[in-house]
Amino acid sequence: MSEMKRIPVSIIGVTGYTGGELYRLLLSHPGVEVVEIAAKSKVAEPISAFFPNLKGVSEQTIVPIEETSRSGIEAVFLSTPHGAAMDLAGDYLDHGIKVIDISGDHRLRDAAEFQAWYGMPHTHPERLSQAVYGLPELFRSRIRKAGFISNPGCYPTASILAVAPLVKNALADLGSLVIDSKSGVSGAGRKPGPLYHLPECGQNFTAYKIAAHQHTPEIEQVLSDLAGKKIQLSFVPHLLPISRGILTTAYADLSENLSLEDLRQAYRDFYRNEPFIRLREEMNRVSLGAVVGSNFCDIGVFLDDRLNRAIVVSVIDNLVKGAAGQAIQNFNLLFGFEETLGLERAGWLI
Amino acid sequence: MSEMKRIPVSIIGVTGYTGGELYRLLLSHPGVEVVEIAAKSKVAEPISAFFPNLKGVSEQTIVPIEETSRSGIEAVFLSTPHGAAMDLAGDYLDHGIKVIDISGDHRLRDAAEFQAWYGMPHTHPERLSQAVYGLPELFRSRIRKAGFISNPGCYPTASILAVAPLVKNALADLGSLVIDSKSGVSGAGRKPGPLYHLPECGQNFTAYKIAAHQHTPEIEQVLSDLAGKKIQLSFVPHLLPISRGILTTAYADLSENLSLEDLRQAYRDFYRNEPFIRLREEMNRVSLGAVVGSNFCDIGVFLDDRLNRAIVVSVIDNLVKGAAGQAIQNFNLLFGFEETLGLERAGWLI
Amino acid sequence: MSEMKRIPVSIIGVTGYTGGELYRLLLSHPGVEVVEIAAKSKVAEPISAFFPNLKGVSEQTIVPIEETSRSGIEAVFLSTPHGAAMDLAGDYLDHGIKVIDISGDHRLRDAAEFQAWYGMPHTHPERLSQAVYGLPELFRSRIRKAGFISNPGCYPTASILAVAPLVKNALADLGSLVIDSKSGVSGAGRKPGPLYHLPECGQNFTAYKIAAHQHTPEIEQVLSDLAGKKIQLSFVPHLLPISRGILTTAYADLSENLSLEDLRQAYRDFYRNEPFIRLREEMNRVSLGAVVGSNFCDIGVFLDDRLNRAIVVSVIDNLVKGAAGQAIQNFNLLFGFEETLGLERAGWLI
Amino acid sequence: MSEMKRIPVSIIGVTGYTGGELYRLLLSHPGVEVVEIAAKSKVAEPISAFFPNLKGVSEQTIVPIEETSRSGIEAVFLSTPHGAAMDLAGDYLDHGIKVIDISGDHRLRDAAEFQAWYGMPHTHPERLSQAVYGLPELFRSRIRKAGFISNPGCYPTASILAVAPLVKNALADLGSLVIDSKSGVSGAGRKPGPLYHLPECGQNFTAYKIAAHQHTPEIEQVLSDLAGKKIQLSFVPHLLPISRGILTTAYADLSENLSLEDLRQAYRDFYRNEPFIRLREEMNRVSLGAVVGSNFCDIGVFLDDRLNRAIVVSVIDNLVKGAAGQAIQNFNLLFGFEETLGLERAGWLI
Repeated sequence: MSEMKRIPVSIIGVTGYTGGELYRLLLSHPGVEVVEIAAKSKVAEPISAFFPNLKGVSEQTIVPIEETSRSGIEAVFLSTPHGAAMDLAGDYLDHGIKVIDISGDHRLRDAAEFQAWYGMPHTHPERLSQAVYGLPELFRSRIRKAGFISNPGCYPTASILAVAPLVKNALADLGSLVIDSKSGVSGAGRKPGPLYHLPECGQNFTAYKIAAHQHTPEIEQVLSDLAGKKIQLSFVPHLLPISRGILTTAYADLSENLSLEDLRQAYRDFYRNEPFIRLREEMNRVSLGAVVGSNFCDIGVFLDDRLNRAIVVSVIDNLVKGAAGQAIQNFNLLFGFEETLGLERAGWLI
Repeated sequence: MSEMKRIPVSIIGVTGYTGGELYRLLLSHPGVEVVEIAAKSKVAEPISAFFPNLKGVSEQTIVPIEETSRSGIEAVFLSTPHGAAMDLAGDYLDHGIKVIDISGDHRLRDAAEFQAWYGMPHTHPERLSQAVYGLPELFRSRIRKAGFISNPGCYPTASILAVAPLVKNALADLGSLVIDSKSGVSGAGRKPGPLYHLPECGQNFTAYKIAAHQHTPEIEQVLSDLAGKKIQLSFVPHLLPISRGILTTAYADLSENLSLEDLRQAYRDFYRNEPFIRLREEMNRVSLGAVVGSNFCDIGVFLDDRLNRAIVVSVIDNLVKGAAGQAIQNFNLLFGFEETLGLERAGWLI
Repeated sequence: MSEMKRIPVSIIGVTGYTGGELYRLLLSHPGVEVVEIAAKSKVAEPISAFFPNLKGVSEQTIVPIEETSRSGIEAVFLSTPHGAAMDLAGDYLDHGIKVIDISGDHRLRDAAEFQAWYGMPHTHPERLSQAVYGLPELFRSRIRKAGFISNPGCYPTASILAVAPLVKNALADLGSLVIDSKSGVSGAGRKPGPLYHLPECGQNFTAYKIAAHQHTPEIEQVLSDLAGKKIQLSFVPHLLPISRGILTTAYADLSENLSLEDLRQAYRDFYRNEPFIRLREEMNRVSLGAVVGSNFCDIGVFLDDRLNRAIVVSVIDNLVKGAAGQAIQNFNLLFGFEETLGLERAGWLI
Repeated sequence: MSEMKRIPVSIIGVTGYTGGELYRLLLSHPGVEVVEIAAKSKVAEPISAFFPNLKGVSEQTIVPIEETSRSGIEAVFLSTPHGAAMDLAGDYLDHGIKVIDISGDHRLRDAAEFQAWYGMPHTHPERLSQAVYGLPELFRSRIRKAGFISNPGCYPTASILAVAPLVKNALADLGSLVIDSKSGVSGAGRKPGPLYHLPECGQNFTAYKIAAHQHTPEIEQVLSDLAGKKIQLSFVPHLLPISRGILTTAYADLSENLSLEDLRQAYRDFYRNEPFIRLREEMNRVSLGAVVGSNFCDIGVFLDDRLNRAIVVSVIDNLVKGAAGQAIQNFNLLFGFEETLGLERAGWLI
């Protein structure tokens, strides 16, 4: 085996959970060299000052975002809070650098919708139509040819993968979709707050932003594209008292009578040869523990045959398949690597 | 204040979580004297051997179930595993002792349905029609006159209270009901098993018995009675990595166009003067932390107005309002006490 | 039973965990009426806005500390952060109001030592000698006659109770004491911060302020008084990934050869008739689960006979026996109530 | 880079946590081919039936231990419960296969001591002196030449590494050693039991086997060898409400006056060039979160200068450096690989 060519990349926003997980995963990716890491207003501190697990593994220095370079890199990962990537992406693109935006800034095509759900105007609406939505299981061929990827949100990844076969194959009543999703606390980021203070949330469970979460239009946009008609659905997120993982339970009235086996066969066909989709058919339950630490999305397909309703449960690690891992999967496609490169490892045992 | 008369009672099945919580709560109930506590095959051990929190508080001795008395008590709480209460209830009733069965043995009226969902035949189907379903918010007047109470299941308590105003007032499309429920591990009882082993479940979250949980027909039976017509719904339970608490998210398509305010007013009217129902209108979230340790059921009513779908979130402590506390609430009604007696305390702070 | 006289009291700093737990406990104390609750800069908000468990239980309004009254109350609980009570206590005392300071402001007798460990000067050093240290198991008779109580710290309560029988009876080599203590996160207060952010601490365990915690001189001061000579010891606190509870493991070389039975007898004699001390002799382990939610301090006494070293494990609920409950115990003594009044309940089952 | 030679190995006891973690780690070790995996009485089931994280990663079949082969492998890992490896090791050794025993069967040199602490007789006491204790930081040169490794216990790894520099350099009073250790639940294995049932332990913390844990003589034996004289110490284990990780706090009276800098320099010198030891000098705390998922042992050295007592805190992942990772480290030494091969990854971010 000859040494693989390493693509020089930069990570902007490396001190958050997604940026940190991305950095950690890229350290063992044989086709990447992380030549620059940047964060807001942090001058000349080593990455291990922010992530003590990295001590002795990497002491690479963080540079301020304003001092980042546009030369010597072929790709940049934007792992910044919402509102920052829209001002950064253009300059990288103009320099011929491929951009993978992990934030929510380029996921919605409609600037007015962005403003309505994110509560801020979009400063570069002209670029909303340029970004390719980076969900490889649905848009692999477009991703391969892209220069600008908008990496999906964590809830949308779990939600869309759960129902895409139903929607694409017109198996469900599109007005009946209900998505009840539950996420670990890391999805809310690294900034402390009362809702994430251990005594408040450690033994708690909360439904929040009920029918009001900004990932709702993202899910709807992608599913509408798949269906070829406009879809609206109910989406309710919940906060689990754990660090990582999303479990999504989706409900859809079937548009025709199907057996459980028919239903599962539709999923098998749809996800045939997908390296990161695992259909869980072995028992009447689905656990997120099986995917945490990995890029897998496990999906269990069930039928409430009394009501002819499909119930589909999907699980992902929100920081991996829901963010950093999927960004690497997109990177691999962009640069012609094996799609699973650097993402082969199984999830944690416990 | 004169000293209150104390009703002598017995608890059968005191070493489980529900029995233990019931005992703990009754210790500070001014209208009860627990004169006998019993468990399977435990001879002459003090209760504190099973619940170390009770050391120095009570050293009452547990007797074997076979040696329990039928004299000197006016009520018995059956806190036994499914399948045991059906053989115990009759003898108590025959001795003129009021029975509160906290198990699932007398909740379904149809013996065939019992067998189908519980996986065992019912040994006394003739008594299924005698037990009054002990959900005071719906059946208070019948409970007051009863001698035999079937205490609701934990999931059904949270589920029925969440949607009863919609069903009773014919506000919802009855075929559209989806109930997505999440419970702490104590709901599975005190017996260790792989699913409840901390390394397996402490950072995990699982959907289980998908569209197959034995609480489904119980919910449907009560709601069908309320609606005056047969209801079937989808019910999916999930296992939270915490000890106590249930949060239920219910979805129902509205049968007419209602504003959020209309919807909330319907709930205010329905639960007016209910001492243990708290409507949560102050923000766009509902947390189970607010009820753990108490007999409250908090309910948040929301509207996905784009889809004209009600989303109702309810939270209870599964061991209190979902079991032992509700049993005491029923006891208070049976014996003419203030309904809240012994249940006045707020939930735990954290 | 005639209605008990209710002492009117005020709580200053009611929105923190200790203040909130104190308020919750006092709601069911038959000898108290909480006539005023105050917090910093919070005007006219109900207590339930800060503690959702209290909704429907109390909607008492919080007043700003600057507007608190000095008339109509007989006692005040100061549940403020360190540095605030020293400026509040005097005025209450001058108005003949009994003061129970739950903060650390009046625990050390030496103002220089206070400044060295708390990092701030003491503004009223003249009052340091007036406050009686409110650990009833050691200083009950002084507390009964006092007008000004300094409520012990959480770590000191667990630590002192663990070793007091050894120190008082001169059974240990006083230079050998090691106290290794572990606390839940609520001990750090309600203010969010990176160390208490669930993803950072939920699966973590940390030793902190190693040989540098401000509770060290408090423990030493009390034990030195007991011994009649100066004691210095090593104290290391650790942060447990749970909300409540402290477990302290204390090590002391014995000054003479004692059997385990001798050692345990010394503890039985020392704590004879103490209502809140439970000696755990039934097995070779001690768990904090047995005391959480109660005012008990459980103590297990062990002997490493190969080394003639006592190992004593104590557990408390840091918010109850380590703060609010002990404050009520002191209050009961100050006002001639039964010492256990309002504190009789067993800890939580699970 | 040419393809590395892969050593064929077998894992016996693959369905426990240590066996499973070992298997997971070896899947990405470039110098190993796991040709056989075995467990008790499990015939022809795939490994993913026991570890759902492995689905789609490996479906290797588990064979019954009785049917394991003695040909075609160069090394065997015995990851069996205590009492099983002593009957398996000999046959492998007789066939010229290198044995790495991860169980406790060959750690103590004295069969009587084994029987006293493990509660069972040793069936092959003649082999106790043959096994080399596999703690590379102390015994690397012996390990390289060995054919039979006894892998250290999890508590002993953390404990010995914490104090070895003090003991080896005669810096401490050897009679003063106190080791207070705290472990996650996975250290107790995969078998469910009341102590590990989530409602019992999820918010609990327990001191257990106080001065009675079977790892005590293992720690003493190794430290006595280092010191050149017999050492006895107090060891108290505690059960943390998390899955993984051990934090050990060790206390030792210094035999001479040392500054903190002197003390830390002694550790730096002792662990110079150790790839898996990280000295944590940057702040006054040590967290186990920094090592979970990795083979690192982080050590923080502190001085209670008022008492001239060293306080050393060490943290490891009990399943990695405390078991499977260290076994791989030993394997690498046995077969001439780079010591860190397959173990380079940083611990988990959160």
